Amino acid sequence: GYATLDIHREKRKGFPEIIFGEGKNKEHLLGIFERLMKFHKKVLATRINKEKADYLIINLQDRYPLECFHYHHDARVFYWVSKDYVETKKQGYIAVVSAGTSDFAVAEEAAVTAEFFGCEVKRVYDVGVAGIHRLLDRVSVIEQAHVVIVVAGMEGALASVVGGLVSKPVIAVPTSVGYGANFQGISALLTMLNSCASGVAVVNIDNGFGAGYYAATILSV
Amino acid sequence: GYATLDIHREKRKGFPEIIFGEGKNKEHLLGIFERLMKFHKKVLATRINKEKADYLIINLQDRYPLECFHYHHDARVFYWVSKDYVETKKQGYIAVVSAGTSDFAVAEEAAVTAEFFGCEVKRVYDVGVAGIHRLLDRVSVIEQAHVVIVVAGMEGALASVVGGLVSKPVIAVPTSVGYGANFQGISALLTMLNSCASGVAVVNIDNGFGAGYYAATILSV
Amino acid sequence: GYATLDIHREKRKGFPEIIFGEGKNKEHLLGIFERLMKFHKKVLATRINKEKADYLIINLQDRYPLECFHYHHDARVFYWVSKDYVETKKQGYIAVVSAGTSDFAVAEEAAVTAEFFGCEVKRVYDVGVAGIHRLLDRVSVIEQAHVVIVVAGMEGALASVVGGLVSKPVIAVPTSVGYGANFQGISALLTMLNSCASGVAVVNIDNGFGAGYYAATILSV
Amino acid sequence: GYATLDIHREKRKGFPEIIFGEGKNKEHLLGIFERLMKFHKKVLATRINKEKADYLIINLQDRYPLECFHYHHDARVFYWVSKDYVETKKQGYIAVVSAGTSDFAVAEEAAVTAEFFGCEVKRVYDVGVAGIHRLLDRVSVIEQAHVVIVVAGMEGALASVVGGLVSKPVIAVPTSVGYGANFQGISALLTMLNSCASGVAVVNIDNGFGAGYYAATILSV
Amino acid sequence: GYATLDIHREKRKGFPEIIFGEGKNKEHLLGIFERLMKFHKKVLATRINKEKADYLIINLQDRYPLECFHYHHDARVFYWVSKDYVETKKQGYIAVVSAGTSDFAVAEEAAVTAEFFGCEVKRVYDVGVAGIHRLLDRVSVIEQAHVVIVVAGMEGALASVVGGLVSKPVIAVPTSVGYGANFQGISALLTMLNSCASGVAVVNIDNGFGAGYYAATILSV
Amino acid sequence: GYATLDIHREKRKGFPEIIFGEGKNKEHLLGIFERLMKFHKKVLATRINKEKADYLIINLQDRYPLECFHYHHDARVFYWVSKDYVETKKQGYIAVVSAGTSDFAVAEEAAVTAEFFGCEVKRVYDVGVAGIHRLLDRVSVIEQAHVVIVVAGMEGALASVVGGLVSKPVIAVPTSVGYGANFQGISALLTMLNSCASGVAVVNIDNGFGAGYYAATILSV
Amino acid sequence: GYATLDIHREKRKGFPEIIFGEGKNKEHLLGIFERLMKFHKKVLATRINKEKADYLIINLQDRYPLECFHYHHDARVFYWVSKDYVETKKQGYIAVVSAGTSDFAVAEEAAVTAEFFGCEVKRVYDVGVAGIHRLLDRVSVIEQAHVVIVVAGMEGALASVVGGLVSKPVIAVPTSVGYGANFQGISALLTMLNSCASGVAVVNIDNGFGAGYYAATILSV
Amino acid sequence: GYATLDIHREKRKGFPEIIFGEGKNKEHLLGIFERLMKFHKKVLATRINKEKADYLIINLQDRYPLECFHYHHDARVFYWVSKDYVETKKQGYIAVVSAGTSDFAVAEEAAVTAEFFGCEVKRVYDVGVAGIHRLLDRVSVIEQAHVVIVVAGMEGALASVVGGLVSKPVIAVPTSVGYGANFQGISALLTMLNSCASGVAVVNIDNGFGAGYYAATILSV
Ligand SMILES: Nc1ncnc2c1ncn2[C@@H]1O[C@H](COP(=O)(O)O)[C@@H](O)[C@H]1O
Ligand SMILES: Nc1ncnc2c1ncn2[C@@H]1O[C@H](COP(=O)(O)O)[C@@H](O)[C@H]1O
Ligand SMILES: Nc1ncnc2c1ncn2[C@@H]1O[C@H](COP(=O)(O)O)[C@@H](O)[C@H]1O
Ligand SMILES: Nc1ncnc2c1ncn2[C@@H]1O[C@H](COP(=O)(O)O)[C@@H](O)[C@H]1O
Ligand SMILES: [Mg+2]
Ligand SMILES: [Mg+2]
Ligand SMILES: [Mg+2]
Ligand SMILES: [Mg+2]
Ligand SMILES: [Mg+2]
Ligand SMILES: [Mg+2]
Ligand SMILES: [Mg+2]
Ligand SMILES: [Mg+2]
Repeated sequence: GYATLDIHREKRKGFPEIIFGEGKNKEHLLGIFERLMKFHKKVLATRINKEKADYLIINLQDRYPLECFHYHHDARVFYWVSKDYVETKKQGYIAVVSAGTSDFAVAEEAAVTAEFFGCEVKRVYDVGVAGIHRLLDRVSVIEQAHVVIVVAGMEGALASVVGGLVSKPVIAVPTSVGYGANFQGISALLTMLNSCASGVAVVNIDNGFGAGYYAATILSV
Repeated sequence: GYATLDIHREKRKGFPEIIFGEGKNKEHLLGIFERLMKFHKKVLATRINKEKADYLIINLQDRYPLECFHYHHDARVFYWVSKDYVETKKQGYIAVVSAGTSDFAVAEEAAVTAEFFGCEVKRVYDVGVAGIHRLLDRVSVIEQAHVVIVVAGMEGALASVVGGLVSKPVIAVPTSVGYGANFQGISALLTMLNSCASGVAVVNIDNGFGAGYYAATILSV
Repeated sequence: GYATLDIHREKRKGFPEIIFGEGKNKEHLLGIFERLMKFHKKVLATRINKEKADYLIINLQDRYPLECFHYHHDARVFYWVSKDYVETKKQGYIAVVSAGTSDFAVAEEAAVTAEFFGCEVKRVYDVGVAGIHRLLDRVSVIEQAHVVIVVAGMEGALASVVGGLVSKPVIAVPTSVGYGANFQGISALLTMLNSCASGVAVVNIDNGFGAGYYAATILSV
Repeated sequence: GYATLDIHREKRKGFPEIIFGEGKNKEHLLGIFERLMKFHKKVLATRINKEKADYLIINLQDRYPLECFHYHHDARVFYWVSKDYVETKKQGYIAVVSAGTSDFAVAEEAAVTAEFFGCEVKRVYDVGVAGIHRLLDRVSVIEQAHVVIVVAGMEGALASVVGGLVSKPVIAVPTSVGYGANFQGISALLTMLNSCASGVAVVNIDNGFGAGYYAATILSV
Repeated sequence: GYATLDIHREKRKGFPEIIFGEGKNKEHLLGIFERLMKFHKKVLATRINKEKADYLIINLQDRYPLECFHYHHDARVFYWVSKDYVETKKQGYIAVVSAGTSDFAVAEEAAVTAEFFGCEVKRVYDVGVAGIHRLLDRVSVIEQAHVVIVVAGMEGALASVVGGLVSKPVIAVPTSVGYGANFQGISALLTMLNSCASGVAVVNIDNGFGAGYYAATILSV
Repeated sequence: GYATLDIHREKRKGFPEIIFGEGKNKEHLLGIFERLMKFHKKVLATRINKEKADYLIINLQDRYPLECFHYHHDARVFYWVSKDYVETKKQGYIAVVSAGTSDFAVAEEAAVTAEFFGCEVKRVYDVGVAGIHRLLDRVSVIEQAHVVIVVAGMEGALASVVGGLVSKPVIAVPTSVGYGANFQGISALLTMLNSCASGVAVVNIDNGFGAGYYAATILSV
Repeated sequence: GYATLDIHREKRKGFPEIIFGEGKNKEHLLGIFERLMKFHKKVLATRINKEKADYLIINLQDRYPLECFHYHHDARVFYWVSKDYVETKKQGYIAVVSAGTSDFAVAEEAAVTAEFFGCEVKRVYDVGVAGIHRLLDRVSVIEQAHVVIVVAGMEGALASVVGGLVSKPVIAVPTSVGYGANFQGISALLTMLNSCASGVAVVNIDNGFGAGYYAATILSV
Repeated sequence: GYATLDIHREKRKGFPEIIFGEGKNKEHLLGIFERLMKFHKKVLATRINKEKADYLIINLQDRYPLECFHYHHDARVFYWVSKDYVETKKQGYIAVVSAGTSDFAVAEEAAVTAEFFGCEVKRVYDVGVAGIHRLLDRVSVIEQAHVVIVVAGMEGALASVVGGLVSKPVIAVPTSVGYGANFQGISALLTMLNSCASGVAVVNIDNGFGAGYYAATILSV
């Protein structure tokens, strides 16, 4: 068939397989989602637009309780949590810091993903370096986090500045916000890879999911 | 929330925060716009398409006098000026020079932005190097400007030629006008960064706003 | 002068400022190194070639005990540890996994850096995917690490494979090993940024130092 | 006219000219398709969307038996086989291995093309390296193939891993599945060109057709 | 001949023609330099390595007083000022701000160029965002400048941060300091072009000269 | 206004100004077109889609005889020729050679442009190197041309092969036909710039107009 | 240690591990080479410059008979064949076709590699498309080969032309021969990936080894 | 052997095969050069550095009269003309126009090549757009040429300006003169491909030879 599920991933990696919604047709998506529901207590699908989310709901709601499904529109995240699932809370929290309002969707994807994996998240949004005092005003909530996710588009300078301020690992997420020589996020990506501040690692452009997942991984060390 | 306004920017930078309209949803846009109106006498939003402009007007017109809002369709610029705002005129004027008719929208974004910040602007449009006599015919209005903005797409050669003719700072704006090996403005961008004429500095592709703002900054020196 | 030391970085970030040796002339390098020695118990300089290392030693050895200086030729790392420095060991260890023998220098830069910051390191070298059984044979030492650093050039596929096998954070370091369409490491860099396995974050091409530092940061969470 | 058919290609190359459907208007497409039907017993057109397929069928069905036309929607492949065509089966089979469900369309284009040219195909789908045990579980069907086609997007690491496991020629097809630093398939393309495993050759991004054709060519050696 | 001097440039542009030393052979360089000395009271050549500087001195010193020639080794700048030249001081000063010690050479090229054109310069070096308090400590000397030049390599984030703090025009100079995904300065260049702070314009990578010249142009407005 | 016509171009360049239709709004287009009609006997506009052509016709037909306007749909070329215009035929003819049926539109743009400028054109279409005998069969009509235009997408190899066969200048036009690593025509563009055959010069991707114009220029030498 | 040999590769892949000489220091190289000699009857190292070849010979010649070592200077290939090794000849031969004399080294790397793996090779060199009759003159030796390797730099058009002429699999090797917009082989690489002729697969730039190996793999199908 | 001479090229193309000196070893170069001398009255080799030129002279001077060999050091061009060769002069002349003194070598390669093919050349050097009056002063010698070659580095704007002034075909040669965002000539290359002036065709970066050859081709039409 079109899919070979990785049922043992939860055992191996601590977390079950996540569905990448982009580029899959609706029938494949539904098939995979429901099969994963058989093996796990939680199933997550990312990059799910409204149309796909509706399709999933409509086709699953007669067999499963509706309140177990969740769709975050901005974050384009769809997930299901079994009624009998019990979360084991992790120590510490993750700060999700974003540069501008336009980075909202990616920041939310990171935050919602981390929460899905049982982490506490504190949001510090729209504190980009064009007005650095906004960041300095809220530096203590960032410093006290166990992990910091920085989401920034345009030139992505915020990652370096935060990297220079905190002792905890910083996960930098470049976004495709911008235009012209931004090249759909390349500018912020290169900024983050070349950060003069140490302690910054990078995930793919607009990969809020990856950052949320990675942060959860660190909290589980 | 989704936004952390930089209220002190006017004090620090001389000009209040400008809203970047692209990539923001309408609700966020309206929320930010109105909050900035509380703290400043003028609010500017760029990259506002017709749909967003209409949404802003419709949702603000019952609380504020309609004639204080302005929308420039070509420039995609939306702004509000409080009734009791008094402009202090700056000395000198800015020449906005464009290479072709296709660069009109970006040139207007530059011109309207500079005017928003209280500068006088003279427009010299469609004088690209394919017919250099058009430029030479109008060189005196360019030479007498305090700052010159050059807007050009395709190969962007106009910036170097103007740069070779005037003693004042030239701000070069590459546009994405062109096709093929133009690569959405990279060609003109590289031209301007490599200008053999001295006295040319560059802003992002299609960043008419940035050029207008920069010119206003120079006039304020 | 040519340098403004960041004396408070240790307090802020947990680790003192590291000197980036490339592109600095010898006199600047020596000046900065010695000034940092005044404020800290350990000083690290990366990207130090043999000539610069010799210069540092020759000019410092009359004022400081020689045995406190260390130079790792492959890793191009130079450091000094004060006699009275006492290390506080961190829990867990870091696995440094490399794809091929040609990645040796970068892997060593990562390993030596992590050791400098007080971490235990286990090396698993030359286990690239061309012979994946080499990796599977040694999977348990990798699985039991608290953090895994994967160093790989050419196409960098090892990062994804390791990412699919372990539950701990993976730090991927692309190297510039390869030729042609490798583009000095771009191939491996893109691979790692696009890893289909979750739990992989990336540092700059050949940035062994950054990976070692980041791993130490995670062990300190 | 707009087309010069290469009637002798079958004699020279073993296979007749294939029509590249993208970028041709419907009238040209139909004209070429029907002319090729005059000279050959089988005609294949690739990159045919639903609209073009319908147009071809509607305009050909009155002159030719409908059951001789075939359209594969996922693979975007349209072909006609004359009633009196007799296939000579080739020895051995081709394994088409794909990394993820999102690579389905390209994998099918490869498989259907190879079948069109009279080859047996075995499909091994969705066995990417994020869960490498899925691949190892099915390694024997891959090892016993005469040729292996690997279809993978994102970072494309599967090609190297398969390349390290089998002794037969591997044809790698990068797909444009992914986002951000994937750059529409460049990431997987570079991976495959730089494969540390020997015995891997590469075709264009999303070129399932090319891989299927090439595999058929090898089976004909 | 090999050169057509632009004798009228001083009249047109306020400053005489500057010699670009790179890629010219020594004989051409000398010929041009001496011819310009006939028409102007000051002659500047940039990108002059030690060997070329020595050649110029050796071949000019018998005909002109030696003390009128100046060579800045770090900045690779060579110039001559006639004995009877009288400088007219400009109002205000230029702050040249650099991110790291490795950016020293480019920062000096900017500073020396601006001084050559009669401007006062204040240097604020090695205050990159990895330790942002170094910048904040010296913010007043930057704020009070009439123009600010920011020189930064690696990710170049300093330009945005400074751009967010001051009301005067910022000229950003990306340097090629860095490695890997820095791509010889592309990373810092893109950062600066995409600056989220307004009031930042950009010159070519490593173009300290261009920034110094541009700043002088602004001081002359 | 938005346009500064280059009325003297005909005198200077032999041909009047051509209107670039892309990126101009309809009102600007009409304004420019009609103004050029006042000064010249022929007016040409390129990159005119159906909608714009209709707009021009509708708005001009009441003031000018309809039969003087011509629209080539494939070539996206619109022009007007005054009733009293008399063409002076040039000696020799231009061969327009294309690689595939998909290159039809660009080839036609070249051919129609050259005809507009009074040149005779012979078309040799769809003779790409995948079946080189198609080209060899028609080599004499190509050899006897005074100028040869080669239009090719995908890898663009046809330009080199033709360049190796004829003694006359070859103008190569890369097209954006292709996908994947074609990068919208970069592949063919690079091929043509690096042609191992001498006597090949290149115009922009998809610039059929430029090639037709250039050929006319050569015929006028 | 620095290396983990893949001893089982011969069993799995039919051929033992090959040593990639570039980027390995001499000591590592020697260590790996000698260890592989213990497990296999033939050992091959590629990208071995003269200095490394001499080092290997000098350090191995006292323990092994000198005549068992072979160094191909142009191909930069070094190998050892045990005295008691018996080759089993494969059916058919490989044609190695090159475009120009400058491609000699890469073509030889391909040819020598294929010969090392027991294949017969026929060389057809310097028959690029600038003089296509050279190719047509020798087309029968190419047509009768079982596999064809095409080695070409500059624009690499030869691969498409050969691809259009033969029915057997073509392996295309782009070389870095050229300058300017060749970009060290990118031009030829893209050409080959976009070949309009079917039946062409591509290996990395300058990867003569990969092509020779792949051809041997096909001959073994 | 390593070379297959294209003896019939003179008959086909009007000019004999030219030797590309770069990337060929000295022995191959000599062999090819001498063999071509057997078939033609003139032999040209380009990209010949001093060392190769000396090698050719030393090895040929005992068999051929020394005065028949010519080496242009700047242009890196080496050629031989048989004593009994009689040139047939072409009508009209070529103007070779260069932007700066640094473009000298490439301009000379173009000029010397054109002269080798029997064309008259007029040189107009160092008239770049930074001081456009230098160009306007000499416009008549350019206008009266039958073909114009424009050689320019940095941003290459000169090509567009010349293209806007003359009615004859312009051949644009981008040079790699510049630094930073010049990217070894990409900037000038893109400029020339995107020229807003019609009548400009482009050859490869630094390809003075190609331009000289192309101009000679046009003069022969
Ligand atoms: N057209 C524009 N181009 C570039 N930057 C802009 C533009 N308009 C506003 N900005 C800047 O974008 C930043 C706002 O980011 P955000 O928080 O997403 O609204 C502000 O610092 C503005 O100065
Ligand atoms: N298809 C085309 N491709 C490139 N340049 C063109 C094309 N059509 C017209 N032009 C040129 O574009 C310039 C007009 O620019 P604009 O002022 O924007 O109309 C003229 O110099 C024309 O010669
Ligand atoms: N190998 C390295 N790669 C990347 N960054 C480094 C490296 N070594 C030191 N650094 C960082 O480079 C910065 C030093 O810049 P500079 O002032 O030029 O010495 C510091 O913030 C260090 O954390
Ligand atoms: N999907 C495909 N990808 C690449 N090439 C193709 C594809 N389908 C057909 N072709 C080739 O495209 C060429 C046809 O070009 P055209 O004359 O435009 O139809 C033929 O040589 C085919 O072998
Ligand atoms: Mg904001
Ligand atoms: Mg115009
Ligand atoms: Mg190894
Ligand atoms: Mg899957
Ligand atoms: Mg520093
Ligand atoms: Mg065709
Ligand atoms: Mg040759
Ligand atoms: Mg000059």
